[in-house]
Amino acid sequence: MKRIAIAPGDPAGIGYEITAKALYQHELQNQLAEYNTIPIVYANVPLFYKAIAQFTPGLMVTKIDYPVQAEEPGNIYIIDSGKPIAHFEPGVMSGDCAFCAHQALEEICRDVKKHGVDGICTGPIHKGAMRMAGVPEIGHTEMLAKALDASSPVTMFITRNLRIFFYSRHLSLRQAIDALDCGRVVEFGQTMHKHMMQLGFNKPHLAMAALNPHASDGGQFGTEEAEILIPAAEILRNIGVDISDPIGADSVFAQAAEGRFDAVMSLYHDQGHIAAKTYDFERTISATLGLPCLRTSVDHGTAFDIAWQNKAQSISMTTAIETLIRYI
Amino acid sequence: MKRIAIAPGDPAGIGYEITAKALYQHELQNQLAEYNTIPIVYANVPLFYKAIAQFTPGLMVTKIDYPVQAEEPGNIYIIDSGKPIAHFEPGVMSGDCAFCAHQALEEICRDVKKHGVDGICTGPIHKGAMRMAGVPEIGHTEMLAKALDASSPVTMFITRNLRIFFYSRHLSLRQAIDALDCGRVVEFGQTMHKHMMQLGFNKPHLAMAALNPHASDGGQFGTEEAEILIPAAEILRNIGVDISDPIGADSVFAQAAEGRFDAVMSLYHDQGHIAAKTYDFERTISATLGLPCLRTSVDHGTAFDIAWQNKAQSISMTTAIETLIRYI
Repeated sequence: MKRIAIAPGDPAGIGYEITAKALYQHELQNQLAEYNTIPIVYANVPLFYKAIAQFTPGLMVTKIDYPVQAEEPGNIYIIDSGKPIAHFEPGVMSGDCAFCAHQALEEICRDVKKHGVDGICTGPIHKGAMRMAGVPEIGHTEMLAKALDASSPVTMFITRNLRIFFYSRHLSLRQAIDALDCGRVVEFGQTMHKHMMQLGFNKPHLAMAALNPHASDGGQFGTEEAEILIPAAEILRNIGVDISDPIGADSVFAQAAEGRFDAVMSLYHDQGHIAAKTYDFERTISATLGLPCLRTSVDHGTAFDIAWQNKAQSISMTTAIETLIRYI
Repeated sequence: MKRIAIAPGDPAGIGYEITAKALYQHELQNQLAEYNTIPIVYANVPLFYKAIAQFTPGLMVTKIDYPVQAEEPGNIYIIDSGKPIAHFEPGVMSGDCAFCAHQALEEICRDVKKHGVDGICTGPIHKGAMRMAGVPEIGHTEMLAKALDASSPVTMFITRNLRIFFYSRHLSLRQAIDALDCGRVVEFGQTMHKHMMQLGFNKPHLAMAALNPHASDGGQFGTEEAEILIPAAEILRNIGVDISDPIGADSVFAQAAEGRFDAVMSLYHDQGHIAAKTYDFERTISATLGLPCLRTSVDHGTAFDIAWQNKAQSISMTTAIETLIRYI
């Protein structure tokens, strides 16, 4: 039996609503049962009850103090972990609400360290609100890495059958090209291989996306394939990492989605992001590897403008929970 | 009543098979009827009959000499336009077969000039085979542009509801970034606007993809949005072209697919190609604008390895024909 921690995110946003909606679905409840996994929501309890009353009346949750008390498969548990909020206003960004979300995450990290939970799923927070709360690490991944003493977390996108690792992310496109380096591509290929093994792929079959159109078509459009990527792929294969030569980026993601590869190395932010989000925007979730346990996350924001109005869809949260329980 | 010319492509490849299969479908026949459009296949007649006998026995085609003789809605016509092939071998690349495909295209162009046909749909040819045939223009678009005296044909990708124009295509990614220029972006936005109007969009609502992640997030990742793209978008809006500011490329194609934009300006080859092909690989077709009539094309190759084996799917050819009749 496994336990997962769910952090619904900023209470002023749509996180509480979509968490309640996701857990209310029979389909997800069946999957939790099938994978013998018990969900524990780490949240401000009065606000989570408010969300239940408003959006999913009848959803039963059991309040506990410690994750080990979550013992009954089929139940949904809640641990009161968000700081009380003096003046809660639905949809209004505030440092109080952001701090509440931050506290839930800290509590989850304490329980991860004590092996109380086996995986984490996070809802949306807002960087601006985190700044208002005075939290130094404004993103989830940074917070988790710090609290869990993880030196090099790695982000993977998962969209249905398509899994994408990012060689670089928040760089300008020019900088991303400049950052390509044979040694670092080799290192990143090894990282991908290692993480895929940990996710349960015994012989991960990896693909490398090309940088240039048609993988430069034999050098007609750019030199990076010949000078950096093909040599790196050869080195990787020589050291036992099953990775393709660079494949035209317009084909490689579609091929991976068909199941021809277990994961793709995206060379720059938009390359993999365009693929994932155009393939299925709502079912694109991100996973963080390299932490003591797997973490998945919705890939949308707090949507303050529609929060607490019963307008938010829970597909992404449902997918993030489903993905988590499948891989832990 | 309208007439469309279909060039099945290289007879040694899958073109003849997928053309016969596409035209055999009731769904496509119904659409041809609905749009009051008559298809005329320009091909080597004995080989097209061979394809019919092998893959779609019972498909009736009527041989004519001139497109004006295609008068009966519901019928499928054929004009013998491919050079006889001395030694035809299915799946074997040859200059003879490529030349046959080239001749069909030349005949179509003659009929376009005489207003005998109102649109062109092309199957796959092979550049290597065209070289063997000694044809100087090895790609379809170049051939059509030359034969139809079109100075600046423009390629658009269509995948279901997603329409994409390419600011640049066959350049290395570095060259594509270097090619960004405010004046040229403005010019290209006007070109998009003009062609969308010709396709029947009275008030085309255009989107500009950003170059950098998150459209540079206010200048954090790159300068091209602030220095080139936003100013170009402003100029375009001032001269009556309804185009967005640059939108993060991971969102803009998904938004356009949802119908929020009529077309997207892709700044480099892979940006739009990844989007289209990951969205729906088999239904991605390309259209050529700026010719005397619209031309659509399958976006796959000759697939010599599976040609004439009843393995090829006709989805792309069907989609190319459907798209053509919808827009002419």
